[in-house]
Amino acid sequence: MSPTRTAPLTNTDVAALDTAHVFHSWSAQKTLNPLALAGGSGSTVWDHEGRTYLDFSSQLVNTNIGHQHPRLIGAIKEQLDILTTVAPSHANHTRAVAAQKILSHAPSTMDKVFFTNGGADANENAIRMARLHTGRDKVISRYRSYHGNTGAAIVATGDWRRIPNEYSRGHVHVFGPYLYRSEFWAETPEQEAERALQHLRRTVELEGPQSIAAMLLETVPGTAGILLPPPGYLEGVRALCDQHGIVLILDEVMAGFGRTGDWFALDAFNVRPDLITFAKGVNSGYVPVGGVIISEEISATFNDRVFPGGLTYSGHPLAAASVVASIEAFEQENIVENAARIGADHLEPGLKALAARHEFIGEVRGRGVFWALELVEDRTTRKPVNAGFMGKLKTELLNRGLLPFIADNRVHVVPPAVVTPEEVRQALAIYDDALTAVS
Amino acid sequence: MSPTRTAPLTNTDVAALDTAHVFHSWSAQKTLNPLALAGGSGSTVWDHEGRTYLDFSSQLVNTNIGHQHPRLIGAIKEQLDILTTVAPSHANHTRAVAAQKILSHAPSTMDKVFFTNGGADANENAIRMARLHTGRDKVISRYRSYHGNTGAAIVATGDWRRIPNEYSRGHVHVFGPYLYRSEFWAETPEQEAERALQHLRRTVELEGPQSIAAMLLETVPGTAGILLPPPGYLEGVRALCDQHGIVLILDEVMAGFGRTGDWFALDAFNVRPDLITFAKGVNSGYVPVGGVIISEEISATFNDRVFPGGLTYSGHPLAAASVVASIEAFEQENIVENAARIGADHLEPGLKALAARHEFIGEVRGRGVFWALELVEDRTTRKPVNAGFMGKLKTELLNRGLLPFIADNRVHVVPPAVVTPEEVRQALAIYDDALTAVS
Repeated sequence: MSPTRTAPLTNTDVAALDTAHVFHSWSAQKTLNPLALAGGSGSTVWDHEGRTYLDFSSQLVNTNIGHQHPRLIGAIKEQLDILTTVAPSHANHTRAVAAQKILSHAPSTMDKVFFTNGGADANENAIRMARLHTGRDKVISRYRSYHGNTGAAIVATGDWRRIPNEYSRGHVHVFGPYLYRSEFWAETPEQEAERALQHLRRTVELEGPQSIAAMLLETVPGTAGILLPPPGYLEGVRALCDQHGIVLILDEVMAGFGRTGDWFALDAFNVRPDLITFAKGVNSGYVPVGGVIISEEISATFNDRVFPGGLTYSGHPLAAASVVASIEAFEQENIVENAARIGADHLEPGLKALAARHEFIGEVRGRGVFWALELVEDRTTRKPVNAGFMGKLKTELLNRGLLPFIADNRVHVVPPAVVTPEEVRQALAIYDDALTAVS
Repeated sequence: MSPTRTAPLTNTDVAALDTAHVFHSWSAQKTLNPLALAGGSGSTVWDHEGRTYLDFSSQLVNTNIGHQHPRLIGAIKEQLDILTTVAPSHANHTRAVAAQKILSHAPSTMDKVFFTNGGADANENAIRMARLHTGRDKVISRYRSYHGNTGAAIVATGDWRRIPNEYSRGHVHVFGPYLYRSEFWAETPEQEAERALQHLRRTVELEGPQSIAAMLLETVPGTAGILLPPPGYLEGVRALCDQHGIVLILDEVMAGFGRTGDWFALDAFNVRPDLITFAKGVNSGYVPVGGVIISEEISATFNDRVFPGGLTYSGHPLAAASVVASIEAFEQENIVENAARIGADHLEPGLKALAARHEFIGEVRGRGVFWALELVEDRTTRKPVNAGFMGKLKTELLNRGLLPFIADNRVHVVPPAVVTPEEVRQALAIYDDALTAVS
């Protein structure tokens, strides 16, 4: 009875119905020209008129397992026949198994999972835990970061649930390591790590270590540019947190669950966070879900003390069923290993070959299925190409059947973790042709 | 392959697995004793050992259409076979139809829908729209209210998306009308409405009308006590907003979609909001979803100007499919009308008869399938019964096979909107017996 299956629809019909009724995020509503997507499978999506696209965006870098994986669809259908929704206060077996599965791939010091609806409220609850655990307010995060888009609902709330959550101050931003555009006049990764740590240490000292509840960092900043931390940086952050009793929250919303070729991006570093936030790749967005993975120490803080946070759909059964199925598929189909191999054997050499052919690729960086091409007008000045250039490039890519992820002056090459070498080969040829067309 | 369907599970197994791995909201983790829920149908849920409960909580007052409605399950399965997830920037037909369906039951001045994951981020985005539309910061809401539990993620974010969303001040709380516990020394509904409006008007004057972006009100405060506004109050709030160019946001997350016996709770009043937020009843929580219904005037503000908000799962296809199916079922099965009739013909007389038999029911109030019993030690002083009393009452209700919704000193009688007269009769008998047992 869902209307997608009645009359044959044109792309124009769907785009018109969409722009008439749906208010779009991050956009001026009169400038919209949305692509009408009707279906998908694996690394491919298609519109209503049979045109297919290689999905090298993974939508919003979330379909790590690809589109329409039968195991997830089967598990959601099974759960649909049993129980679609249940309040978070009750116990539900599927939810408990989902938490257990997530914990089985997290560092061994982690104890419990708190489920949310997505990444933003995962970070909200991680910050809440850190503040209550430490009795401090401030949160240090980085300028080049995105942690979600909420900031008011609990302060607007009037009842007692506002009181333990009402922070009028307390967000401090620092610069992070980004050697290609160093804020620290550094020339080597070692220098960049060392100087970024010194800048962070000085900020902590001057803000007052006793006022700082948490450091909140994307393990690998994602939309900000896929900025792999240089060796020693995350380890240094951990040491600074330990020195001052600061909670370390690693945001793995985009970087987790195979994206970097590891289960968690943090697995590539010698760092143990106190809290890990996740969403997106945990179930590839098949059902909205996110959450916080909580260390034993922080979990224990709330053994006898009420945790003043919650939400109606926390631990939703359909989401939980899809999480269980996705992690089982990852395990049995070696999807994390595929992402690592695709990165090392196909994307890295392929993208570096592109950079050798196209002067305006200033830097290629990444890991697994998480890569950025930084486009510049001039390799010496590193001046970013402008928005008009990126718009033209996007059109050329779409015209050749590739759905890209564009951020500022960068192309993020972020296919599903199940992408095949042949699909990478096709995509590289399209990037090559499109770059030639705009040059 | 979801593990709920393997070995026969006991309630103890499930509760133990749950408390070992799942971190619970609004709780101290060592005090948990969750009910293990395995399945449900209509107004009934059951555990793993065959014990059934009349669900007069609607979980978190969200399963307005009851558990496991076949039309919603069918629609979600159909969408599962087509496309489970799609980025919000693209157009998707199911999403567009869901927006169209929601708008068809909203006031005719409403223009578009912005989808979110739930009620908290619906309020977040409504506040954001109001602030950008007015160029002002402050939001007035009420002490007896709950608008969600987020307040930090965008302030922690470092990139440009923080800048238009960073408000360091601007939340003011006022008292709302609540005649049974009047903050205004009022004795009649008319007096309560008039004095609550005067209090609000004085607050607006002293905060400075030119600084106030929005008034954010639950049309009928829900968890705060099911506080029906007295005649004239909402109309007076609208007039005050009009006078000062303040955006009126009505939070219908709990009260909307049949709960009060109307499509929207605001339908019972002569008031046109600028923004309506929704979640819960829109699809009974079958898939996490919420959103903002936007007036033509506010929608037009963002025609040429970028709206700086968004989220990965905005307009999720499975959520959209369930919204369409739920609204169609509401229309064809006269579910809103059922809620109204159950309220007027069964719950209101039944609960008032209970109050006549039990001295410690201080007040019965509500509408549709949205009722509160306010329990007091003494009808003259109106002193609330204590938490121990409510704990005992909850146990007595559960022991008799009714899953209640308890808030402070109140029992909220909030069954699904599809509840039958016979189920209400059974529930009233259980409330009666349990109240006798604890007295």
